[in-house]
Amino acid sequence: MGLEKPYLLFLGDAPDQLAAKTATGIADWRPDWCVGQLRLPGCGADTGLRDVDIAEAVRLGAKTLVIGVVNSGGFMPDSWTHTICQALAHGMDLASGLHGRLASFPAIREAAAKHGRVLHDIRQSEQEFVTGKGTKRTGKRLLTVGTDCSCGKKYTALAIERAMRARGMDADFRATGQTGVLIAERGVAIDAVVADFISGAAEWISPDNDAEHWDLIEGQGSLFHASYAGVSLGLLHGSQPDLLVLCHEPTRRHMRGLPHAPIPDLGECIALNLAGARLTNPDCRMLGLSVNTSALSPEDAERYLAETSEKLALPCLDAIRGDPDGFLDYLD
Amino acid sequence: MGLEKPYLLFLGDAPDQLAAKTATGIADWRPDWCVGQLRLPGCGADTGLRDVDIAEAVRLGAKTLVIGVVNSGGFMPDSWTHTICQALAHGMDLASGLHGRLASFPAIREAAAKHGRVLHDIRQSEQEFVTGKGTKRTGKRLLTVGTDCSCGKKYTALAIERAMRARGMDADFRATGQTGVLIAERGVAIDAVVADFISGAAEWISPDNDAEHWDLIEGQGSLFHASYAGVSLGLLHGSQPDLLVLCHEPTRRHMRGLPHAPIPDLGECIALNLAGARLTNPDCRMLGLSVNTSALSPEDAERYLAETSEKLALPCLDAIRGDPDGFLDYLD
Repeated sequence: MGLEKPYLLFLGDAPDQLAAKTATGIADWRPDWCVGQLRLPGCGADTGLRDVDIAEAVRLGAKTLVIGVVNSGGFMPDSWTHTICQALAHGMDLASGLHGRLASFPAIREAAAKHGRVLHDIRQSEQEFVTGKGTKRTGKRLLTVGTDCSCGKKYTALAIERAMRARGMDADFRATGQTGVLIAERGVAIDAVVADFISGAAEWISPDNDAEHWDLIEGQGSLFHASYAGVSLGLLHGSQPDLLVLCHEPTRRHMRGLPHAPIPDLGECIALNLAGARLTNPDCRMLGLSVNTSALSPEDAERYLAETSEKLALPCLDAIRGDPDGFLDYLD
Repeated sequence: MGLEKPYLLFLGDAPDQLAAKTATGIADWRPDWCVGQLRLPGCGADTGLRDVDIAEAVRLGAKTLVIGVVNSGGFMPDSWTHTICQALAHGMDLASGLHGRLASFPAIREAAAKHGRVLHDIRQSEQEFVTGKGTKRTGKRLLTVGTDCSCGKKYTALAIERAMRARGMDADFRATGQTGVLIAERGVAIDAVVADFISGAAEWISPDNDAEHWDLIEGQGSLFHASYAGVSLGLLHGSQPDLLVLCHEPTRRHMRGLPHAPIPDLGECIALNLAGARLTNPDCRMLGLSVNTSALSPEDAERYLAETSEKLALPCLDAIRGDPDGFLDYLD
């Protein structure tokens, strides 16, 4: 990707933690790449990194300002422009995972040109895709799917990659969103691909591989999310997963961004994902549930995991808070 | 859209009738707009219009050469360039529904500039979309869905629009593909939208309307097609249909373009489409099946329709060969 490190993470006025999930993803998985975070008034998110301003970040050696905020549709509010241009004036490059290309904002384009800085559009791929073919590829694949957006699909895939590698297994995280691409430094933000090529891009992300090699593919959205389900289904078909892990946040009251839309029933969610996956891999099965229990007390988390595991007859664990290694005993 | 009429339809070397479905769509639904067809050696398609060369088309007054060929992924073969540039040199504009922008092909861009002609990219919309919201809109909606690609979804929606208008009903065909957009002179080729905005674009295509107004929305692909199902699902969610009509071609042996992929069972196809539709409209129901019987004898067609209707307990008719009016008795 050619981003110069280290990074200053820009959280803007992200209203809550989930809205800054690109920043928190990088801070959690690649803390060594970051000098700190920069937040605007009203920001309700926190990566846990130290707060620094542009001048301090420059003193700490920051080379790239990474826009770490995700919003519905991926737009850029005017209120961010001043700070972003200030970073460019102080010699930082700029990286963004928004839908709009950075050069399409006149103030940013002009500041970058004036100060000779590079603009990186992470969400747009230069790759030319073809339509999906559905032909079975070699190697093994695990895809994380979700009851909703932003419920742990990327973290679970990364945690399982880490656990597999710790056991000496041949495993690669495959990024399908802008945050994952920033963490892995490769992959494709599949929601920014032209719709005809969703499954084709997913096939490209996870090509033929050795028989014992595992791809841990980052899922996107949810088959039950009225905004994004098309992306989820194309990714499911193109991934051809041998295994699914269903990610779930048990305190969520409605689908992210859609206050009128209820969270789907876990059993229905498992059935619909398996039905979709079996179109391109009839042997696909559900490995288990990765439950994001961060909003529960340890006791409540333990009880929820045990009850859900018994109800669904599947391993249920929190791959982040607990030990993702637990899944690896059920691979065969 | 601003295309100057009449059109010369370019079929290139389309291997079969379905590969020229943009040309046949325009010829079947807007014959008055066309002076004829132009075919290259090896072309296996025929719109039924007279074959003319560029010089003859110019004499007949042709103002725009419309590329009427559809291929997987929407690419432009080199073998078409000579004829296309010849049309530009003879004073015709050019319209295309391919994914690649016409100006991205140097020979075409240069010929258009040299001869002062206009290049129309039908598949790309200038419209900026937002992500789908799933909130219920006013008015009534019918979406055609399919067991496969290219099995009659556009023709069925157009035929029902015609039948409704003949009964004095307030009805509009809503185009979601390049051919439909060329026929309706509005709409969006939804497979060319950035994947994040599939359902949002579908919501934009079919906005709030009068309580008794019907939108007849052109379906795309199939939930069971490994290349395009993401587009189909996003369109299903964004359309919020009150009624579905399932389109089917009974002699098809495998999914279009995927020789290894079987045609789905009709009952499973109905169930999965209804489950998807009910995420954004819980009252959605299946109105009936529109069977493309063009490959069957009249007797075989009649028998197939009767048997399928009895088996599924749904009205089954051929909306093209037969009378689409038959569906209108089952609207309530």
